[in-house]
Amino acid sequence: MKTGTIVGAGLAGSLWAVYLAKAGYKVTVFERRPDIRKAEISAGKSINLALSERGWTALREVGLDRMVEDLAIPMYGRIMHDEKAKLTFQPYGEEGQAIFSVSRGGINARMMDAAEQSGDVTIHYNHQCVDVDFENTKVTLLNKETNETIEHQSDVVFACDGAFSAVRYNGFQKVDRFNFSQNYIADGYREILLPANEDGSYKLDKNALHIWPRGEFMLIALANEDGSFTCTLFMPFENHEYSFDKLNSRDDVDQFFREVFPDFHAMMPDVADQWETHPLSSLALMRCYPWTHENFALLGDAAHATVPFYGQGMNASMEDCYVMGQLMKKHNENWTEVFKEYQEVRKPNGDALQDLSVHNYKVMRDLVADPHFLLKKKFEHRIHDLYPEKYLSLYSMVSFSNIPYAEAMQKGKEQDDFIEKIMRENDIEARFENDTIDELIHSIFQAEAV
Amino acid sequence: MKTGTIVGAGLAGSLWAVYLAKAGYKVTVFERRPDIRKAEISAGKSINLALSERGWTALREVGLDRMVEDLAIPMYGRIMHDEKAKLTFQPYGEEGQAIFSVSRGGINARMMDAAEQSGDVTIHYNHQCVDVDFENTKVTLLNKETNETIEHQSDVVFACDGAFSAVRYNGFQKVDRFNFSQNYIADGYREILLPANEDGSYKLDKNALHIWPRGEFMLIALANEDGSFTCTLFMPFENHEYSFDKLNSRDDVDQFFREVFPDFHAMMPDVADQWETHPLSSLALMRCYPWTHENFALLGDAAHATVPFYGQGMNASMEDCYVMGQLMKKHNENWTEVFKEYQEVRKPNGDALQDLSVHNYKVMRDLVADPHFLLKKKFEHRIHDLYPEKYLSLYSMVSFSNIPYAEAMQKGKEQDDFIEKIMRENDIEARFENDTIDELIHSIFQAEAV
Repeated sequence: MKTGTIVGAGLAGSLWAVYLAKAGYKVTVFERRPDIRKAEISAGKSINLALSERGWTALREVGLDRMVEDLAIPMYGRIMHDEKAKLTFQPYGEEGQAIFSVSRGGINARMMDAAEQSGDVTIHYNHQCVDVDFENTKVTLLNKETNETIEHQSDVVFACDGAFSAVRYNGFQKVDRFNFSQNYIADGYREILLPANEDGSYKLDKNALHIWPRGEFMLIALANEDGSFTCTLFMPFENHEYSFDKLNSRDDVDQFFREVFPDFHAMMPDVADQWETHPLSSLALMRCYPWTHENFALLGDAAHATVPFYGQGMNASMEDCYVMGQLMKKHNENWTEVFKEYQEVRKPNGDALQDLSVHNYKVMRDLVADPHFLLKKKFEHRIHDLYPEKYLSLYSMVSFSNIPYAEAMQKGKEQDDFIEKIMRENDIEARFENDTIDELIHSIFQAEAV
Repeated sequence: MKTGTIVGAGLAGSLWAVYLAKAGYKVTVFERRPDIRKAEISAGKSINLALSERGWTALREVGLDRMVEDLAIPMYGRIMHDEKAKLTFQPYGEEGQAIFSVSRGGINARMMDAAEQSGDVTIHYNHQCVDVDFENTKVTLLNKETNETIEHQSDVVFACDGAFSAVRYNGFQKVDRFNFSQNYIADGYREILLPANEDGSYKLDKNALHIWPRGEFMLIALANEDGSFTCTLFMPFENHEYSFDKLNSRDDVDQFFREVFPDFHAMMPDVADQWETHPLSSLALMRCYPWTHENFALLGDAAHATVPFYGQGMNASMEDCYVMGQLMKKHNENWTEVFKEYQEVRKPNGDALQDLSVHNYKVMRDLVADPHFLLKKKFEHRIHDLYPEKYLSLYSMVSFSNIPYAEAMQKGKEQDDFIEKIMRENDIEARFENDTIDELIHSIFQAEAV
């Protein structure tokens, strides 16, 4: 029987187990943590995530989209909260288009269920990968409950074990000519839970992603199913007017929220009490190549962990599964061929994903409060309304299409230059006001193709 | 008693042991390999190295310069060998200035001797670092002869264990916010031993570094004490007209040398016979930060491994020891202060060392065969002869001074722009020919300061 090993039962691992089981493999999954479906534990660091088109596509391919639908809260756009508690809404896409807030633990549990129902899949919890044997396609696991070490051999191994991948550290990184970097950005984050009202209702519009953009830092909030919001403060660790090292006491924190996020403070006057119970965490980008070696492949964060600012980490991991699945069929499970094409096709997209993610921090914490940026977005939306076939914004290409990241980024750059040029040459704001914006757009788009 | 642990008894470790012993520390050194003074083994991958001013300065500080003098063969310049076996000499610096070919094993053994004679130094061989405990300033070592594991505690630990540092992998890389990259260049190398003549004499001028520059690849040769030369072929691994993947048989190799390095082939017609016995090795740059954590510091290649093309790897490691030694005195052995300043001062120089090393591959394999480059070097030498206080070439700053690498690189860039501008505006070649070059130089240097 065909056998496959998956290290890590997180978002990439549990989804890939479904793909592999459906292809008739006997699948063994080793997960370092306990079963999140049984224990009251955090599945990872961030509690909720934004699911968008790439994720849906990968789920749909194996019939999982319906299994997670009820977990997903649509967010139709951003709501920006300024220092005076004034709100601005900016839609993400066309009418009705949304990205979806999902609980990491919730979607992970559903995918584990699906994996176990898809075929011959066994998930071993509390098993940590401590060694890798490329030559014999084996991994060595430490059972953290019994302290015993076991070896496991199979036809093919998938490392879905995240940013700090043990397969990568214990295996790939020791391979000659393996390029690797781990780069921490200067900012960290701390999560805060904004509880529901006493009647269980939401304190904010649940159908939007909330942002308090403050230039060098920001607070965001995504709705949970129970009426609460998971809020995250992203900020430099040190050396800034506002940085985590300045917030050392309950009073510092209280004053900071009162001053900088007044509407948030009003909703949650005891925010400072929760401060210490949530850890301050760091954010890193992991780049490496090659992504495959012998019968081993890196998938998801293990290959291309990124910062969370485009909400694409999970979606990219799921897209890895989708692409690997397509190639598995195309090459009739000849893994040498599959892996070769997988890494050649996906590496540029992993790099682009990371570049896009880093850039979008600036967009979220700073540009969304910038009138020029908002006007540009409005202009872009109008262009798309009139010429939907000719114009898709970068955000839409990334979040509402399956256009490869590298292609989207390249096209996005060209479009941005083009739009900026038009905006320099025309008073777009006045055009909107005197209702001649469509005229301008027609004159441009009938004359030249973008 | 003050105690210090050093992991690695290579060039950095054995020299730093001398510094630390002289400061009154009880020093314990753990080396993964057997004692190179007793075993007939290779000390590392490259057999000989170029010792220059920074290395001498660090050796001199602890009285070791005289202990290694007799090992050092001066090289006063480069001798380029073209495809038609025509030779061109280009001096490295002023009359009498030289860099020195030394055997890695030879200098390492002398420094080990010196360490053992400097005070309370014990070197344990066949001990591999397998774990790091920052909190308790402990390292765990596997005795590879007995297979026993021991723990060793001390006041301070220095990781001098090279590009693939076990202290870095097992310790630093797991520290939150530790940035790290390992980048392999596209080229590899293979060493070839050009033997002495039957009477023991050298087949080439021993007092020069020989280069066969061929654009995208090169062969170099450095003299050994016994009349032989260690030659190294640097070349892309694959995907080039000339790359290692094209040389698959004895005939391929023979034909390649005959065609591309005719004078070398004439000296060593059996070069192809040796080919398979020497491994093909890769070349990587390791960058990381911070370089210190708690009571641990990275020194030498463990902190900033580079490619060998400026001949500065060993010199930079020795300079780390010199700088650490100065700071140890300055801060009266307050290691928190020493480590803080050490990494702040040395990190930009480690980065510059790497940038310079990468750039110099192009210089050696390509530019030294370029008439414009050679004319520029000649012009620079003449400027320096006339205005020694005002003008020092980049090569001289790097190899014949202790100017920090970052400063040298910056000044070198400014000078290069300046020289290129003069060369665009004047026919330097004609000026040399009609003996008006000094006139030009005086007119420039009396008018403006560089």
